Amino acid sequence: MEVKNKYIVTKHHIQDAPKEANFELKTETITLSIAPGSDHIIVKNLYISIDPYQLNRMKLSSPSQATISFAAPINPGQAIDGAVIGKVVASGNAKFQKDDLVLGVFTWAHYSLVKEGNILKKLESSEFPLPYYLGVLGFNGLSAYAGFFELCKPQKGEKVFVSAACGAVGNLVGQYAKLLGCYVVGCAGTHKKVELLKQELGFDEAFNYNQEKDLNSALKRYFPDGIDVYFDNVGGEMLEAAVGNMKIFGRVAVCGVIAEYTSGGRKAAPNMMDIVYKRINIRGFLAADFLNVFEDFYAKTSDYLRTGKLKIIEDISAGVESIPSAFVGLFKGDNIGKKVISLVEE
Amino acid sequence: MEVKNKYIVTKHHIQDAPKEANFELKTETITLSIAPGSDHIIVKNLYISIDPYQLNRMKLSSPSQATISFAAPINPGQAIDGAVIGKVVASGNAKFQKDDLVLGVFTWAHYSLVKEGNILKKLESSEFPLPYYLGVLGFNGLSAYAGFFELCKPQKGEKVFVSAACGAVGNLVGQYAKLLGCYVVGCAGTHKKVELLKQELGFDEAFNYNQEKDLNSALKRYFPDGIDVYFDNVGGEMLEAAVGNMKIFGRVAVCGVIAEYTSGGRKAAPNMMDIVYKRINIRGFLAADFLNVFEDFYAKTSDYLRTGKLKIIEDISAGVESIPSAFVGLFKGDNIGKKVISLVEE
Repeated sequence: MEVKNKYIVTKHHIQDAPKEANFELKTETITLSIAPGSDHIIVKNLYISIDPYQLNRMKLSSPSQATISFAAPINPGQAIDGAVIGKVVASGNAKFQKDDLVLGVFTWAHYSLVKEGNILKKLESSEFPLPYYLGVLGFNGLSAYAGFFELCKPQKGEKVFVSAACGAVGNLVGQYAKLLGCYVVGCAGTHKKVELLKQELGFDEAFNYNQEKDLNSALKRYFPDGIDVYFDNVGGEMLEAAVGNMKIFGRVAVCGVIAEYTSGGRKAAPNMMDIVYKRINIRGFLAADFLNVFEDFYAKTSDYLRTGKLKIIEDISAGVESIPSAFVGLFKGDNIGKKVISLVEE
Repeated sequence: MEVKNKYIVTKHHIQDAPKEANFELKTETITLSIAPGSDHIIVKNLYISIDPYQLNRMKLSSPSQATISFAAPINPGQAIDGAVIGKVVASGNAKFQKDDLVLGVFTWAHYSLVKEGNILKKLESSEFPLPYYLGVLGFNGLSAYAGFFELCKPQKGEKVFVSAACGAVGNLVGQYAKLLGCYVVGCAGTHKKVELLKQELGFDEAFNYNQEKDLNSALKRYFPDGIDVYFDNVGGEMLEAAVGNMKIFGRVAVCGVIAEYTSGGRKAAPNMMDIVYKRINIRGFLAADFLNVFEDFYAKTSDYLRTGKLKIIEDISAGVESIPSAFVGLFKGDNIGKKVISLVEE
């Protein structure tokens, strides 16, 4: 059976903030059957995860390229890959059967032709809505959990600050911190997000950084006695302000630096004297380094979901065609919570 | 018995790089006897430690002031205090007798009138030359030892970079690293220092940063496969270049940021994407936090000294009058090794 398969590519390497014009929707004709002797698998994609770090793969050169496989460069014209949940439509591999639900590294497309190595796991149960496995129960959740608990070693009662607090990772960090018994303040870029953080997600306080003239004063207002833990998703000036407001022995987990992914943002120049005198620890990390705590993370998080202790915020768009604007929107703060593309109705 | 006591004060708060004109030599008349009922102790000072961090105490406001007692501000006109070794000349405190050798926080002066709390310890033995107790066997040594071993957790064979490698702390870090079996490169600001590092102290390589157009390329030359551990004494551009050349899971111990103590130096804006993707750990520290390893440090270091495995470089000037130029010289790279003022002949 032949079908038209739509997929997304970049037209060229991306320098600054991405624009929709950097992307192109392509169409190819594919056969939904496996050639004899092939062990490939054809997956019909259902949910596509849209993540800011992908921009780094679209650049001409990036530090990511030398260091870690899932950050390998994306070449212009090449189908973009990322975390996707799909359903097997045909398989030449005995381990996967038609209709299996699989999570893996597939293309931004309706259909992906994949090898066994692209599949991270079968989703045996679907106790939770499928997109959860891309977000709260996937790498976003693990980033939040491992970055907060493993790197920052937080204690009950400590003061925690989270930037991009309505983002896929940040909102979970704040909720984990509240569940531990911390005082939690988040920042975000719109009034609506700030209200969501306070009203729905249980943050003690939240502020709109676009309405603050001086980030340093803003943090002093919410943390008169200083910050113990800063979970950094943005870098830039916010990191500088946070370092200036850390307590002694403060810990900074750097999960992402979205303000520095594009050349528009100013690079952080934190006060190094503060770092010495306050004995601050700044540590970058990737969730992939913490697979050893995955089981613990998954069990605890599933339980929080079952008991309603963790709220989920998702921002779902429909259709392959919507991917470029969804991706571009990440860098403009358009998304509220985890950004996912649904292809379920297609 | 009345004597004239000379001591050093700052005339005003210091803004930028210190100048000799910022200091003043004052003279007072004191009595070398203890008033009845007083538990004070009079110390004749023998060796005065001259350390860059003191500049931070001389500024109008500094992050040091809020966080740690020995970094309390020094007010203009007030006798400056710091680490000093002296001999008791009179004592109203039964714990200290005439001629006891004591190490403590005394004034930059010939004589200091001190309380018991100012004395850190009696030097019961003098197995080693007295200035060693201010440097290699004091807080400089502990900074090098704890910062390198406790924070950086180095392994034999790892690649170690040390800035200000001819300084009081840096030279010891490099030597500890060589004793562990690391590959060690140091940087310094003169040809003479570079030769000393390679010829006398056993560094594998050393370079003069003043002769490098591009610090990034310099580090790439000496670390083609990257740096595992960077022991930072300077901050600024060198920190940026080091972060750019770190391996994954690289560790940076920030002991001091002398390039940033004065407003002339550019503040470090390390590439935060490198910090995330390479999972770099940057940690500021103070030796005072590692008193728990003092005994271990002291035993190992004494043994290295006895067996000649650790070389000592000291830069000794004579006389209270020489203090301002000695201190100012720290920020111009004048000193080679530990800077000490000797008052022994006076």
